[in-house]
Amino acid sequence: MRAELISTGTELLLGQILNTNAKFLGERLARLGIDVFFQTTVGDNESRLAEVLHTALKRANLIIITGGLGPTSDDLTKETAARVLGLELLTDELSLVRIEDFFRVRGRKMPEMNRKQALMPAGALVLANMAGTAPGMIVEQAGKSIVILPGPPVEMEPMFLETVEPYLKKKLGEDRVLIVSRIIKVLGLGESTIEEKIRDLVDKQVNPTIAFLAPRGEVYIRVTAKTGTEKEAMEMIAGIENEIRKRLGDYVYGADGETMESVVAGLLKRHGLTVSVAESCTGGLIAKRLTDVPGVSENFMYGIVTYSNDAKTRFLGVSAGTLEKHGAVSEDTASEMAFGVRQAGGTDLALSVTGVAGPGGGTPEKPVGLVFIGFAEGNNVAVKRHLFTGDREVIRWQTANAALNLLRGYLMQL
Amino acid sequence: MRAELISTGTELLLGQILNTNAKFLGERLARLGIDVFFQTTVGDNESRLAEVLHTALKRANLIIITGGLGPTSDDLTKETAARVLGLELLTDELSLVRIEDFFRVRGRKMPEMNRKQALMPAGALVLANMAGTAPGMIVEQAGKSIVILPGPPVEMEPMFLETVEPYLKKKLGEDRVLIVSRIIKVLGLGESTIEEKIRDLVDKQVNPTIAFLAPRGEVYIRVTAKTGTEKEAMEMIAGIENEIRKRLGDYVYGADGETMESVVAGLLKRHGLTVSVAESCTGGLIAKRLTDVPGVSENFMYGIVTYSNDAKTRFLGVSAGTLEKHGAVSEDTASEMAFGVRQAGGTDLALSVTGVAGPGGGTPEKPVGLVFIGFAEGNNVAVKRHLFTGDREVIRWQTANAALNLLRGYLMQL
Repeated sequence: MRAELISTGTELLLGQILNTNAKFLGERLARLGIDVFFQTTVGDNESRLAEVLHTALKRANLIIITGGLGPTSDDLTKETAARVLGLELLTDELSLVRIEDFFRVRGRKMPEMNRKQALMPAGALVLANMAGTAPGMIVEQAGKSIVILPGPPVEMEPMFLETVEPYLKKKLGEDRVLIVSRIIKVLGLGESTIEEKIRDLVDKQVNPTIAFLAPRGEVYIRVTAKTGTEKEAMEMIAGIENEIRKRLGDYVYGADGETMESVVAGLLKRHGLTVSVAESCTGGLIAKRLTDVPGVSENFMYGIVTYSNDAKTRFLGVSAGTLEKHGAVSEDTASEMAFGVRQAGGTDLALSVTGVAGPGGGTPEKPVGLVFIGFAEGNNVAVKRHLFTGDREVIRWQTANAALNLLRGYLMQL
Repeated sequence: MRAELISTGTELLLGQILNTNAKFLGERLARLGIDVFFQTTVGDNESRLAEVLHTALKRANLIIITGGLGPTSDDLTKETAARVLGLELLTDELSLVRIEDFFRVRGRKMPEMNRKQALMPAGALVLANMAGTAPGMIVEQAGKSIVILPGPPVEMEPMFLETVEPYLKKKLGEDRVLIVSRIIKVLGLGESTIEEKIRDLVDKQVNPTIAFLAPRGEVYIRVTAKTGTEKEAMEMIAGIENEIRKRLGDYVYGADGETMESVVAGLLKRHGLTVSVAESCTGGLIAKRLTDVPGVSENFMYGIVTYSNDAKTRFLGVSAGTLEKHGAVSEDTASEMAFGVRQAGGTDLALSVTGVAGPGGGTPEKPVGLVFIGFAEGNNVAVKRHLFTGDREVIRWQTANAALNLLRGYLMQL
C-alpha cells in the first residue's frame, strides 16, 4: 500500500503552526509498513486542493487528508473531495444527532452552521469524533481509500488510532510489510568520520537501509528494516546495530527513546552513585535535563548555578585569586568549581561547566564557544576544553551534552 | 511572487522529526508578502524529488528546497536540481577552502567525501554557511529563482535571514504587499475569558484579523495586518493592540519575541535588582530560562537546585522539622526555601518552587501538578499554591512560568 498525506490549512502555509499531524501520521503509517512518498500542504482553497487530490489519486492508493472539516465557510475539504470523486453530499442523521448532543451536554444550542458538519459523501464510512464536532470519513473508490480527518490533533489522533488504524490493518491483512526503524545516537564523532568507519555497510545497504541525521552537534544513524514480522525486522536491525556499535565503540551513547540524560541517570542508578552539578554558562540546563528523567532524585542531589563570580566563590569556594588570574572561563576555575560543588554536599561525583555562550562576551583569547568542563571524583578533578560553534542555544546544548558525556564515559568504565 | 517549498528527507516522511523548516520559511515569506500555495515533502529519492521539482517549476516562480546537501550518498538535492535544470556541477573553489577551514579550526583533516559539498550548479550564486559545511545556492533560470538550503535549522535559518531574505527583498522592489503579524502574549486568563473581554473586536475584524493560539497553558493573540508598508501595518496593529492591552491589563506580559524570562530580566535590569532561585520540581528550568537571556548576569546571581531533602536543609536552611511535619511539597517548605536562598548569597529578591511534577509521586492529598511557589523580598516571604494539569514537561514549564510571572507582578508595581 502506498500512501500520500495532504494537510490543508492556510495557517500551515503561513508558518503559524507546526504540522504535527504529518509527523504523527508518518510515524503511524511507517509502523504499519505503509510507504509515504509525498506529503503536501495546501491552503483553504478549493481549486488547489482539488489539484493536489487529483495528483495524489494518480500515485497512491491510500490518501489521508487532514483539516478543513469545521463549520465555517473556509472549511471545504469534504465538498472538494466529493466533487473530485463525483459523489453527492448527504446528511448523515447519526452524525447530526451526535453534533447536537455535543452542544447539549455543554448547555448550548447547536449553531445552524454546524449542521454542515453532518454532511457526508454518499457511501462514506463515518468516523465518530469523541473530542469535537467534525466526524471523519473513509471513502473507497476504484481500489483506493480516501480518509478525511479533522485538523486539530486532539481530535485527529484518537480518531486515527481508534478507527483508521484498525481499518488499515484489516486491509493489509496478513501480507503486510512492516517498516521498523531504530535510531542509533552518536556523540563525539562527525558525520563524515562515521560514514568512513561504516562505509562498507552503507555501500551494501539494501535492507536494512542506513541513513544519517545530524541534530545539534550529534549524529543519529537510522537503520530501517522492511520485512514481514516485527521479530524478523528486529533481528535484521540488531545485526547491523551490533556491527555499528563494534566500529564506533562508546561514541554510541544510546538508541531510540534514550537520551544522553536518561542514559547517564540509568548508569548512576546502576552503580548507586550520586552526582552534583555546578553550572555557569549552561545556567541550569544540565540540572534541568537530568531532572527531566523521572526518578533521578536518588542520584542527582543538587545543582548550583553560579552565574556571578561572587557566587562561584561563596558556594563553590573558587578562590578570588584564580578568578582574577585566570578568569571565570578557565581550566582552573572549572577545576575548582567541580571540586567545590562535590565537597559542598558530599556527592560521589560532580560536574562543572564554565564558558562563553555568546552572543556577547567573546574575546580573541576566549572566543564565543570556548567551554571548560570539569569532572570530580573524590578529590580528583579533570578538566576538558571545547570550542563549540552555533548560537547561544546550540552552544549551551552542546556544552550540556559534552558534560553529561564526560560523566557517561567515567560510568561506562566502572 | 509565488513561492513553493520543497522539504527533502525520508526522516520527515517517516515522522521522525517535525518539519520546522516549513514553518520558519512560511512565516518569513508571509512577512515579505510572498504567497506560498504548496509545500511538499519528499524523501531522499532522486526521481521523486525530480517529479516534485518539475511540478513546482510549472506553478511557482520562487522555489525553496531544504535538505539533502550533506556529504553522504543519500544527499542528492543539488545533483537532482542540476539535472532537472540542465546545469553542470562544478567545484566552487571558495566553498572548498571554507569547508577545509571548517575542519582545520577544529583540528581535523577534511574527509574526502566533504569535497562534494563544494560542487555547485554552473552559474549559481553561492551562499556561505556560517554554522556548517554545506553552502546554499540560488539558481536563476527563465525568470524563476531556485533556492537550495541545508536541512539543519541551525544552518538554514541564519543563511535564509542573512542572504536569501535580502535577495528576495531586492527582487520584490517597492510594489509588494506586506503581511505583518504581532503576537500578544497572555498568562493567567483562559482563552474563553479573553474572548469574552474582546469579543466585539473579534466580531468586527476584517483587517487586521485576530486569532487565538494556546500553547502550554498560555494564550497568544495574533493580530495580522495586510497593507502596503510596514509603517501602515504597524499602526493598524498598534490600534488593536492598545485596545487589547487596555482590556486585559497586566495579564498581557509581552509581545512577539519577548518571553516571560526576557521580560523579567528587563524589569530586573531597569530596577537594578538582583534575584536568586531555589528549585525543586523544576530542577533548574527557571535558572535555565533566565540565563537564556544574554546579559542577565548582573541581575541573576545564582540558582540552587535542591532535589534532595538533605540539599534543601544544607544549602537553603529548610528545617528538618518542617520537612518532616509538612513534607517537601508544602507551603512551609516553599517559604523557607525562598527565605533561605535569598539569605545564602544576599540577593534583593528570591523565588522558590517545590511541587509534584509526576508522572509518579502523586497522592490524594498531594496530587501530580500540585506546586507551591515562594517569593522573598528582604525578610518578607509570600507563597502561592497552584494545581497544574499536563504531563511532566508541561507541569514543569507552567511552574516556571508562574514563578517568573509572580516576580514580574512584583516588579511591575515598583
